[in-house]
Order: sequence, then C-alpha cells, then structure tokens
Amino acid sequence: MSDSKINIGNYFEDFKLNEKIIHPLPRTISDGDVSLYIALTGSRFALNSSVEMAKTMGYKDRPIDDILLFHIVFGKSVIDISINAIANLGYAEVIFPTPVFVGDTVRLESTIIGLKENSNGKSGNVYVHSQGYNQHNELILSFKRWVMVHKKDVSVQAGIHEIPTMESIVPVNNKLNIPLVEMIDIRQTGNAYFWEDYVKGERLDHPEGMTIDNSDHTLATKLYQNNAKLHFDDHMMKSEKVGQRLMYGGHVISICRSISFNGLGNALWLYAINSGTHANPTFGGDTLYCYSEVLDIIEHERKDIGLLRLRTIGLKNITPKEVSQPRNEENKYHPYVVLDLDYTVIIPRRIQSI
Amino acid sequence: MSDSKINIGNYFEDFKLNEKIIHPLPRTISDGDVSLYIALTGSRFALNSSVEMAKTMGYKDRPIDDILLFHIVFGKSVIDISINAIANLGYAEVIFPTPVFVGDTVRLESTIIGLKENSNGKSGNVYVHSQGYNQHNELILSFKRWVMVHKKDVSVQAGIHEIPTMESIVPVNNKLNIPLVEMIDIRQTGNAYFWEDYVKGERLDHPEGMTIDNSDHTLATKLYQNNAKLHFDDHMMKSEKVGQRLMYGGHVISICRSISFNGLGNALWLYAINSGTHANPTFGGDTLYCYSEVLDIIEHERKDIGLLRLRTIGLKNITPKEVSQPRNEENKYHPYVVLDLDYTVIIPRRIQSI
Amino acid sequence: MSDSKINIGNYFEDFKLNEKIIHPLPRTISDGDVSLYIALTGSRFALNSSVEMAKTMGYKDRPIDDILLFHIVFGKSVIDISINAIANLGYAEVIFPTPVFVGDTVRLESTIIGLKENSNGKSGNVYVHSQGYNQHNELILSFKRWVMVHKKDVSVQAGIHEIPTMESIVPVNNKLNIPLVEMIDIRQTGNAYFWEDYVKGERLDHPEGMTIDNSDHTLATKLYQNNAKLHFDDHMMKSEKVGQRLMYGGHVISICRSISFNGLGNALWLYAINSGTHANPTFGGDTLYCYSEVLDIIEHERKDIGLLRLRTIGLKNITPKEVSQPRNEENKYHPYVVLDLDYTVIIPRRIQSI
Repeated sequence: MSDSKINIGNYFEDFKLNEKIIHPLPRTISDGDVSLYIALTGSRFALNSSVEMAKTMGYKDRPIDDILLFHIVFGKSVIDISINAIANLGYAEVIFPTPVFVGDTVRLESTIIGLKENSNGKSGNVYVHSQGYNQHNELILSFKRWVMVHKKDVSVQAGIHEIPTMESIVPVNNKLNIPLVEMIDIRQTGNAYFWEDYVKGERLDHPEGMTIDNSDHTLATKLYQNNAKLHFDDHMMKSEKVGQRLMYGGHVISICRSISFNGLGNALWLYAINSGTHANPTFGGDTLYCYSEVLDIIEHERKDIGLLRLRTIGLKNITPKEVSQPRNEENKYHPYVVLDLDYTVIIPRRIQSI
Repeated sequence: MSDSKINIGNYFEDFKLNEKIIHPLPRTISDGDVSLYIALTGSRFALNSSVEMAKTMGYKDRPIDDILLFHIVFGKSVIDISINAIANLGYAEVIFPTPVFVGDTVRLESTIIGLKENSNGKSGNVYVHSQGYNQHNELILSFKRWVMVHKKDVSVQAGIHEIPTMESIVPVNNKLNIPLVEMIDIRQTGNAYFWEDYVKGERLDHPEGMTIDNSDHTLATKLYQNNAKLHFDDHMMKSEKVGQRLMYGGHVISICRSISFNGLGNALWLYAINSGTHANPTFGGDTLYCYSEVLDIIEHERKDIGLLRLRTIGLKNITPKEVSQPRNEENKYHPYVVLDLDYTVIIPRRIQSI
Repeated sequence: MSDSKINIGNYFEDFKLNEKIIHPLPRTISDGDVSLYIALTGSRFALNSSVEMAKTMGYKDRPIDDILLFHIVFGKSVIDISINAIANLGYAEVIFPTPVFVGDTVRLESTIIGLKENSNGKSGNVYVHSQGYNQHNELILSFKRWVMVHKKDVSVQAGIHEIPTMESIVPVNNKLNIPLVEMIDIRQTGNAYFWEDYVKGERLDHPEGMTIDNSDHTLATKLYQNNAKLHFDDHMMKSEKVGQRLMYGGHVISICRSISFNGLGNALWLYAINSGTHANPTFGGDTLYCYSEVLDIIEHERKDIGLLRLRTIGLKNITPKEVSQPRNEENKYHPYVVLDLDYTVIIPRRIQSI
C-alpha cells in the first residue's frame, strides 16, 4: 500500500522565494462555461450576453466575463498554492489586460514573491504573483495573493521574513485593450447612467437578494476545477468547527457583481481588483445582498470611457438598507458581512462628451 | 447616500396606453443554453436533441426548443413589466413564427395594449403585447400577457379602463415556418403516434414524475436572466405568507412539456400557447406530474402535418391516475393543481397520408 | 380516457432472443455537455480540458470524456431495456473504440443476447449487447449489461435459460484509436507518474471527497436523458423502502473517476470497463470517496503507452484510510461501499522509453 503518487500539495517549507510554478490543467473556455456562469449567477451585463452588441462595439465575439475568467484561471493555482492553506488572506493587483473569447485556452504560472514564517512557528504566509496566458501567450490575467499555509514540521524554524510590496490601488493604465466606445445603447444595457453621473462617496443599495444553495456553489467551484476540499467535502467539514461546506469566496464575488448590475449596468469591464477580504464565511442556504460605494471617480486619457473605484460590501441574510457600516465600533466586521471588495470598473462616458 | 440609479421598475401609473418599451439585454443563445435546458428538464424531443435529425428534416441545425426560447425572451420583460407585479394573470396568443438556432441573438419589445385600474384603487392590470426578434429582425416570438401591478400612489385614481380583445385560441396560420416533413423515423423520436392517431377528448396520463429542488429552478430562472425576486430571495420570502422561494411558473411549463414526451413524442413543435394559468404555487422539493387532454384535432392545409390543441394539467405530489378533474365542485382548482395550459402543437401525419 | 399511447417499456416476456432494438433519441454532443460534465464532476483530466493539449497530441479537438460519452449513450437504452428493471446486475466488455468530439451525433442499438427466467417465476434476467455509433456509423461505444426485469404475467412460465458468455476482462486490442504519444507535459496533466511507475498490487487512497446533493445527480441524469424514475421521482420513492431518490449509479462512477485524478492524472483514456457493481445505493447528501488498486500492469505492443487494470472502490461517508477491504468476513460488501469497478486505463510510458 503506497500513497506516494498522491499529490498532497505544498506546505510552507516547500515554497522557495522567487520559485516559478507552472500550474497544471490548461482549459479551453467554451459557450458551455458562459451559459453555466449565467445560470449560476444570473449575470446580466450586456457585453457578455450578446454577440451582436459585442460586435457593434468592435469585438470579434462577446468577451468572457472577467470574473468567470478569474475563477477558471485562479482555480488552477489551488493544488499548488492553497490546498493546505489555513486562510486566504488577500488579493491585490488583479488585472485583466487582454479580453478572452470562447475557444481560447488559458493556463497559469506563478512566482513566489514573498514568504513569512509566523511567530507561532506552525504556519507561514506565502505571497504569490500569478499570471495567466491564452494560447497566443498573451497575458490575460495577473494577480497577487497571499495565503497562510501549514508547516509540515513545526519543530524547524526557517526564520524567513520576506514580504513583497504591493500596490494598494492598481494604477491606471493609459493603454486599455478595449475598443473605442462610439455608442452605448442604454436600451440594450438596461442602465442610463454613465461615468459622469457617479459621484464620489455615493452609495448604491442594490435591491436584489440571491439565495445560494449547496448545489449552486459546488457546481460553480467544480466548473472552475478548483479542488479545495472545504467547499466539497461535507463529511470532512462536519468534524470541523463550521460544521458544513464553505462557499468558495469567489462565488460570493460573482453573486455580488451580478447583483450590482442594478445601479452599475454600464460598468461593462472590470479594470482591476485592488483588494478583497472574505470577512465571514458563507454557507449553502444563505441569501446574499450587497451595496456599493463609489470610492473614486477616475478620469482616463481616453475620452470615451472613465473609471470608477468601487467598494462593494457583500452581506448575508440582511438587506443593505439595514446596514450602515461593514464594521462595528471595534473596527471588526459585523458577522453578516461576507465580502469587502475594492475594485475598479471601466464605464463609458456620455456620447456627447466624446 | 442615494439610490436614484437603482431601477425599481414600473408601477401602474408609469405605464401609458400604446407606449412602446424596448427591453434591455439582447442575448445570444448558445449550445450551453441547449445543454443546460436538457439538464434542467430532461427534455427528450428528438428535433431539439439531434443536429443530424434536424438536417434530415431540412433545417440547417437543430432548432432551439420553443419553450427554452420563450423563457429566455420572456425573461427580458420582467424588469420593465412585472417586477412590481402582484400576480401574473394570464398569457394569450403566444406564437413562434420563426425557428431560432444556436448563435442567434434575441431581443424583445413590448407595447402596452391595455390598462385597467382596479376598483380598490391600490393596483391595476397592465396588458402587454411583446414581440421578440432575432438579429435579422425576424419575429421569432410574439405573446400577450397581463399582470396586476401595484400603484405607487393609491390616493390618485386614474380611472382608466381599457381592456384589449385577445383571441382565446390562436387561429391556425396557413403559412408555417417548418420544413416539409418527408419522413419521421419513429425509431429516432421514440414515439409511434401521429396526428391521425389522436382522438378529441382523449386523455394521456404521462407516467413520469420529476422532483424539482431549489437549485434546479433557480438555475433555470437565472439562466433566463429573469430577475423576479420572489424566485431567488429566500430571506425576503421567509417574511411572506408562502414562507419560501416560489418556483418560476415557466419552469413548471418546461417540466410538464418534458414529461408529456411520453405520449406526445412526435409533437415536435409548439404552434401556440392559447392560454395558461399557474393555478397554485410550486416550491423546491415538489414532485411534478401531468396529464394531457386532446381538446381538438385541427387539420392543416399542408398534408404532412396536423395540429393538436392540448390541455396539460400540471400536478404536484399526486399522480395523474389519482386526479379526474383539475377543479372541485365549486369550480376552484384543487390545491395540487399547479398548471392549466391550453396550447397547440404541430405533429406529423403518417407518411402514407401525404 | 386511454393510455394506449404511453410507452410503459418492456417486461421480461417482451424480449426475444437475438432481437435487435434501435433505441430512440440521437443526440448531438456539444460544448455545453462538456462544461456541464466538468461542473457536475469537477473532472480535471487534461486531455478533455484543453483543446490545445489535444491538438498537440494529434487530435483535431479535445475528445469527449469517455464516461460522459458512456452516460449519454447508455441513457438511450433505459426506456427499452431497464425502465421496468428491479436491478442492474452488471456490466461487461465496455469499450470505447473511436474518439467522439463536440458536434458528433450519437445513437444506440442493442441486441438481446441472453434471457433467463428466474426460478420464482416473477422476473427474469435480460442480457443485452449495446452498440453506439456516431454520424459516420463508426462504432464509438460497445457494452454488455444484464438487468433483472419484472414479468407482466407471473402465471406463465417461459422456461427460457439462455446465458451468454462474456469476457471477465476485456482483451487488449493491438489497434488503438489513439494518436502516437510523442510527449506528455506533466506540467499540463498535473501528474508525474507514467505506466512504468505503477506496481501490481499498489493501492492509491485518493484524498478528496465530494458531497453530492440531489440537484447535482438529477441534473446529471437528466442531461443524459436517462428517464429511470427512481432517480427523479421523490414522491414515488417516499413510498418505497429506501424512502428517497436513488442516485444514478453512473454518476457515482463519474465522481470516483474524477476523484481518482489525484494519483492517476495521466490515465487519460479509459480502455475498457471489465465489470462493475453498485454495491449499495447512494443518496443526495452522501459524500463520496474512493481508492484504487492496481490489479494488473499490461504491456502494449505500442511502446508509447501501456495499460493499467484498476479496481476502484467507491465509498460513502467514510475515507479510504478507514477501509481495508470492501467486503466483510462473510464476503458481503460493507454498507458504505457503493462501487466496485474493474476497468482498464491507457497511460503514457515515459518518453525516454520510446
């Protein structure tokens, strides 16, 4: 009896600074993935829904939803980076430099950019820069994340303490891989508001709620070939403190983005995720809501589009109207806050402003 | 804090007679939608299942299932018409004039054809004629429906009372957009019965039952980008009388159509839905059954096909054998009746009759 | 009122020895099916995931996963063969002679190769040889199975006792319809082990568990257009001894194959299923695990690949580490054993060995 062929993933000691990891499992993205993503999230952003609209805008086809792309590509890193993670601590510098279309095949590579052993000696933080490519070797996704990973041998202290610097807000790129927006038909997008209409500090209480059952979030996570056990193995989780399967945090992001359509329907592109925190766990049966704050109004040198830096707060089983702040007086997240996402979207300007 | 950008939909006073509404969100229908529809309903009608069979019949590809098409197109009207509806009161004159294929992009426009303020002054009925088009501007779906919608301001009486006339049975069109049926291979369709075999008054007790879980019906409804909250938001629905998410009535129609395959497997096309009533609500966990009555045998001037007007009664948690009539002695639907659908199908005649 | 048009399937007396049955419902396999299969199983075998990898290996496209193909084709036989089955007794000689791709349309024919009336006179065993074809009439799947089927009339004894001979292990075919393997990039497949690395008698305890909810397995089974009622009709099953819907045994095979990726990731092709037993029922909510034993190391005359005969034991709600043998001292399966599958996979040899 031998388990030597079983991949148990990497522990803190297994990572080396500046090491490059080529993650397995290239994946061709298909129309099936696009339809499943709509079924799993109810997403209504017009650019990802209509080939005709995408062509009118200058695309060859409707581009893949940025967050669907993120999940499919991100999923590849789990086996090497986070299968033994205690916690996903954060994301930064998530960008989507090249649009991806049905038929494209995506893959992922990562570099270990930081390692910090924790003072308790039992675990360490691993900082990773991951870069996804299409079949033409164009960079289609780049992100940094850091996770707390178990050590295999707690008796040995590595004493390593290399923390990389990361941007707290992704700087705006003057070259955007987006066709010139000559016209946005608000009768197609379902939303009448453009870049000029948003005000710094404005808050949007998105009115829709969406209950997520266990089948929903596990179907989504399996679609992404993300094999983190805590999302799938209810038998194992019953012996853990939470007592049940945890929803993949990425699905929470997807649902909040989908709900944010009502109020942000013309925010057709994700420019960047600046940072993200899964403040509390989400479980099957929870109903998700969210509200968004406009953190910043960012002008772009292109005059057809502008950017909005947003903070979307995901909530479970409580409506936005009932929540004024995500944190309590002690600066801790309320137990019903499940997501605190700082991201930047691209949104057309009014046509008359071109 | 401002919610001015949130689309809260239309209230009774917001609708104007003869007003035309262009609904947002054009949608490209893909192979992913086709597969999901099979997974969500178990549908077995051969024409929608096999490209080879469709080509043999003269199609360029397998056409999209009529009811799948209906749901995707119908879903676009929810935000403008029925998001504030108290009740969906009825459908009429639902027709499918042009086949739709994978890759087609569909959109929807509506005209307000009637408005009737209710005597209690709190709500009104809105009558809508909706027309769906493909990317070639061909009419692919036309339907009328009427919904009871809340008023915003109950103190003002509009006194409007314009009720349109509607056909109770869709008249038969002599020009059908269906290839000449030269042969139907019953070894492919799985059913040996043709138009001549059905008898007016005949009843078919379809033997299969299908239990629908919450994930099933919410995945279906999200696939259709139908954002009516009562199907998704269990948190909200817990404070309502029904206490849980309601299944989208359209999914009940899909399941009944799928179950009707056993007995009506050669009824490959929906010609029209004449009228439909969702007699009682359906919830996750309910098992659906149905039976069909042949209301009429309709000859067509084409000799390769004929029409059957059917009444399919959808049931929950009771088999057709146990049900003789959908209504009780007071002419009210039994609590286990969930659908009363009057529709007309197209079915080939025996080849020798051509 | 007449139910004569309802197909109630075949009973034991309805089958004739050497009878040929053409099963209905040809089916075009699409990208939607491929994505759904990944979502339903979490499958990570690289050849079915990446068009680019498949093309590098000499395929025109990524081939359809063998077990997905099996389910879609097998599903067609249910209405004719097993809708009145008391039990699915076994499979044998399951082979996949020709790869199938997106866009192919598959169909199924069967021959009755054996009939054995049971001594109690109430039922009989039906032995079937089923052969699936693509639109070019190439054999894409062949399998034998036998099922115990109810008799219609228990008073008449047919006295038939014709049992066919079947191979207990599928003999190795020297001609394999697989491109010459010039290189396997283990950074793509995620697994470093080749044919030479496996040892007869070796056991692999696959570490992952997967909880299957009712929506998951019913979506899968509906996707395959398999209409066996006991998987769908919870209302009916509540009056049966098991008290709930049974999971389609084929879905258990899929989940175990998916879990076996960790340890067998380079076993890209199923050569054959030699035999299979669904030892105990599986229900929604069960967590599936499995382990695999290497029964045999089989050399092939081609030097780029070899074969492994495997026995995968599927478990519910217990991890492989806790299970030493699938059967107890009385040679009966433990109640937590749900699958005993004897199958042969094709796996590349190390490149240096070519």
